[in-house]
Amino acid sequence: MPSKSTVGGYRHGRVPRAVREQQLLDLAEPLFIEHGYAGFSIEDLCQAAKVSRPVVYDHFGTKDGIYLACLRRIRDELDAVLVAAAGPSPATAAEAIEQAADAFFAIIERDPRRWSLVYGGTTVLTGPIADDLYALRSRTIDRIADVVTRFAPTAGAEAIATYAHFISGAAEQLGRWWLRNPDTPRDRVVANYVAFATGALGQLR
Amino acid sequence: MPSKSTVGGYRHGRVPRAVREQQLLDLAEPLFIEHGYAGFSIEDLCQAAKVSRPVVYDHFGTKDGIYLACLRRIRDELDAVLVAAAGPSPATAAEAIEQAADAFFAIIERDPRRWSLVYGGTTVLTGPIADDLYALRSRTIDRIADVVTRFAPTAGAEAIATYAHFISGAAEQLGRWWLRNPDTPRDRVVANYVAFATGALGQLR
Repeated sequence: MPSKSTVGGYRHGRVPRAVREQQLLDLAEPLFIEHGYAGFSIEDLCQAAKVSRPVVYDHFGTKDGIYLACLRRIRDELDAVLVAAAGPSPATAAEAIEQAADAFFAIIERDPRRWSLVYGGTTVLTGPIADDLYALRSRTIDRIADVVTRFAPTAGAEAIATYAHFISGAAEQLGRWWLRNPDTPRDRVVANYVAFATGALGQLR
Repeated sequence: MPSKSTVGGYRHGRVPRAVREQQLLDLAEPLFIEHGYAGFSIEDLCQAAKVSRPVVYDHFGTKDGIYLACLRRIRDELDAVLVAAAGPSPATAAEAIEQAADAFFAIIERDPRRWSLVYGGTTVLTGPIADDLYALRSRTIDRIADVVTRFAPTAGAEAIATYAHFISGAAEQLGRWWLRNPDTPRDRVVANYVAFATGALGQLR
């Protein structure tokens, strides 16, 4: 077994930057999940990672920077899974919706606490971090809009953007509900979601 | 003009509890909007209201209590507006959706900054406050489910709950988008929303 002062087999002080960053995010994520944004302290992260504060500042700047990096990493995974599920094989938009919906609820099911970090609660973070959070969310929605555009090339850009926001918000809210009602089997959540999202799609002009 | 030490015409120290509470919430709301949850301080509220800390603690307990009371007051208004818009006059579910959607986007338009407090960002608040926030959101969704049940009495409870979450999440996300894209006229946002929500309604079994 590696001693506590090694990370991924590297000697302390010899950890490559990208490896250290992932390690810090691995440790920060459960701290945010456990204590919330307000209760998260950089000191706790330093203790868990056995690094000094300057190391954390050097990687992420501020607490906001750590929080954003955690959410960005989770959203990167989400976006990649959605894009992979929606293309290139589906023949219709309905098929793309079904495959992406199944992938979305599958990743929530696999790691619910991690997803509650993204969808757990609503509060007010103002200023640059609110803009950054909005940008992260928008990136996912833009990927959805890309897929819809592929299957509905004649629909207007505003209608497509509206539809993408509509079904993404619907998926978030259902995901939030499912995190609190985990006894409902995934296939039933997915089937309802797909039926509604496909019904809405029929109204896209 | 009343002096700064009076509230609604009451002499300082003679303000009825309910009046004082509304006054404190009137002052707390812009502080949360301006500084975010993390940046809000009870001291700032005391200074703005010209009261001592025990007065604030006596009304709300903690900062979480103030935050929840602000959100509850805004959501009370939302729920009342939605219920009023959706009934009892509409003859069909589609009509109820249209009237409620128009009312929803109208209140966002009237006071966007206030609504960004509810829909502005997502973050992690864990523990009891996350449960309270979820309960507030659920209350709105339950009102939506009540309306849908009225028009679709044979649909299953789970399908109705799913649909209510679906269209409420869709409305939140569209509202969030509209707060950042305010040049789109309200009637176009409403028309798209109603078309999609009605299309989804057609799939309710």
